[in-house]
Amino acid sequence: MRSVEVPLGRRSYAIKVGGGLLARLGVECAKLEPDLGQRCAIITDSNVGKKFAKAVSDSLFRSGYLPVTITVPAGEKSKCIAVVEKCYDRLAAHRLERKSFIIALGGGVVGDLAGFVAATYLRGIDFVQVPTTLLAQVDSSVGGKTGVNLRAGKNLVGAFYQPKLVLCDLDTLKTLPEREFRAGLAEVIKYGIIFDAKLFAQLECDLSKILKREAKTLSEIIARCCEIKAEVVSQDEMESGRRAILNFGHTIGHAIENSFGYGKFLHGEAISIGQVAAAKLSQKTLGLTNRDVGRIKNLFERAGLPTRIILTSAQRKKLFVAMLLDKKVSGGEIKFVLAKKIGKVVWGQKVPMKLIESVLA
Amino acid sequence: MRSVEVPLGRRSYAIKVGGGLLARLGVECAKLEPDLGQRCAIITDSNVGKKFAKAVSDSLFRSGYLPVTITVPAGEKSKCIAVVEKCYDRLAAHRLERKSFIIALGGGVVGDLAGFVAATYLRGIDFVQVPTTLLAQVDSSVGGKTGVNLRAGKNLVGAFYQPKLVLCDLDTLKTLPEREFRAGLAEVIKYGIIFDAKLFAQLECDLSKILKREAKTLSEIIARCCEIKAEVVSQDEMESGRRAILNFGHTIGHAIENSFGYGKFLHGEAISIGQVAAAKLSQKTLGLTNRDVGRIKNLFERAGLPTRIILTSAQRKKLFVAMLLDKKVSGGEIKFVLAKKIGKVVWGQKVPMKLIESVLA
Repeated sequence: MRSVEVPLGRRSYAIKVGGGLLARLGVECAKLEPDLGQRCAIITDSNVGKKFAKAVSDSLFRSGYLPVTITVPAGEKSKCIAVVEKCYDRLAAHRLERKSFIIALGGGVVGDLAGFVAATYLRGIDFVQVPTTLLAQVDSSVGGKTGVNLRAGKNLVGAFYQPKLVLCDLDTLKTLPEREFRAGLAEVIKYGIIFDAKLFAQLECDLSKILKREAKTLSEIIARCCEIKAEVVSQDEMESGRRAILNFGHTIGHAIENSFGYGKFLHGEAISIGQVAAAKLSQKTLGLTNRDVGRIKNLFERAGLPTRIILTSAQRKKLFVAMLLDKKVSGGEIKFVLAKKIGKVVWGQKVPMKLIESVLA
Repeated sequence: MRSVEVPLGRRSYAIKVGGGLLARLGVECAKLEPDLGQRCAIITDSNVGKKFAKAVSDSLFRSGYLPVTITVPAGEKSKCIAVVEKCYDRLAAHRLERKSFIIALGGGVVGDLAGFVAATYLRGIDFVQVPTTLLAQVDSSVGGKTGVNLRAGKNLVGAFYQPKLVLCDLDTLKTLPEREFRAGLAEVIKYGIIFDAKLFAQLECDLSKILKREAKTLSEIIARCCEIKAEVVSQDEMESGRRAILNFGHTIGHAIENSFGYGKFLHGEAISIGQVAAAKLSQKTLGLTNRDVGRIKNLFERAGLPTRIILTSAQRKKLFVAMLLDKKVSGGEIKFVLAKKIGKVVWGQKVPMKLIESVLA
């Protein structure tokens, strides 16, 4: 088992990566300081719950906790206020108290939803992330961003709220559908682009092992991604500056998800297109080399991810409206994270609308 | 104008108390660091909005801001998730961004609701409290507790989230209905009991001036209450210990509000009964003198507040169920804030159920 520390003072926590961790959840919770209360709730979705809720629940019972399982429908649609309210009502019915805690068992949707519920129930109770997708393990479970969607846009409501522990059980990835696994790689590749040229080169080299989900390689890669995220987040927990680099490819990516309706593109697919577009913008504005743009595009393609999108003019219009509603907009201006070279990005870059249109053409 | 500082490090802010402050709101916002964005939203209710929204909106426009006014129905029922969601949708429609801010214009309900909306919209945007009731000015607008109710209980959802500024305009109290004004005095008297015997004595002495709403006396009393709350909150922002003293009388008070349905008793009325009951519990467990119990009961009575409640056995049962759902319950045990003498309380006091029943009989 590998362990990565997220250093945030009193809000510090560990990310543990390895096999067989679901069965150890109760034991790991019992080690946390300060003591967690006895009552807890597992928030999961209809797909993940079927596979893993019993193992998690049993593990908690064995360590003396009293879990209740709350299952929400699988899919992005559960990331909404109505489902948040249903979770609250269940927590109240199960009499969760201030020392009680929540387990988020699932992918990004469950983590964001359950994290937001934990952040706001009784003005905040503890929670533990148990991410079961590659995307959630390397990205959404770490860093304390929680939230749900509004009709007007993705993640428009939420809180910065750190978990007490993140457990990444590699065994949960074994049954992950191929498309979802590949979508998770979009965030993995992102860490190479924004922070670590060596990681990027390793991904180019080891991609076939990764696609075969070889435990040793996966464990190393996931832990490295978590380390990078931990370092960026610890420098800028509330996203007032540098944390923005984690949004490389996300301005266009979120707009694609939003304007096409959640579900048509997976998040990883949308930000794959977004990252390639951002690489092209970087070439035109920051002199990112042709070679680097090619390597970026090529790696996403080899990972089986989309790198471009064909838009009707109505879709194009919708996409730009969605982009203007993004949280990263300030004073009506869209600001991008752009790359100087692989491994080095800058944030807060203004880009003329025409240029954005041209790279999406 | 009096100014009280709430010292919370990077989250510090000022409470300003005086006349004519609504018209100065824009100017006061413009003084804040870091700069607020141009777009903002005034969240108010149907009663307060009629009286003051225009003055507030005009003041903001004059200082170059672009406010939109969101009016929710007056009353505790608006403190719910459905209204929170409506507010989010309006903020998104008005394109509020991360640097935009919210003005909470109204009493405790509006402050708690708007504060929670601000705490969670885009994972938190700035907000300014403009409390227009005595209760909100001395209590709910200060300290960063925000939240809404669930069917299962009051304030079961929320966040600790500090405003950037609190403006208490004494002129808004002039039109406050008599019953609401008196209810606010329940929190004023509380500060005397929990923290400041001198304040308690001053209230005994100046009650008639206060009931006449004499500006000078009111200004002094309100500023003193805010000072006390600021001191308690700054020592324990997240209510892990001492802040609990602010809940004197609230365990029973909240249970009364909840089990009778919000609206039958005003919050101040319910905690008036709760404080007198807590004084009686204090007499039986901590040796609070008969004389102090009498002074407490007498002051609430002179302020025109209820000090006892007559319950049917069904109501009694409902009240105890509600008490067990209180956020302050830990490990199934109800803990009380109790008084040793006027001006000095202790928290975390376990009280046998039978004793609670006897003081409510």
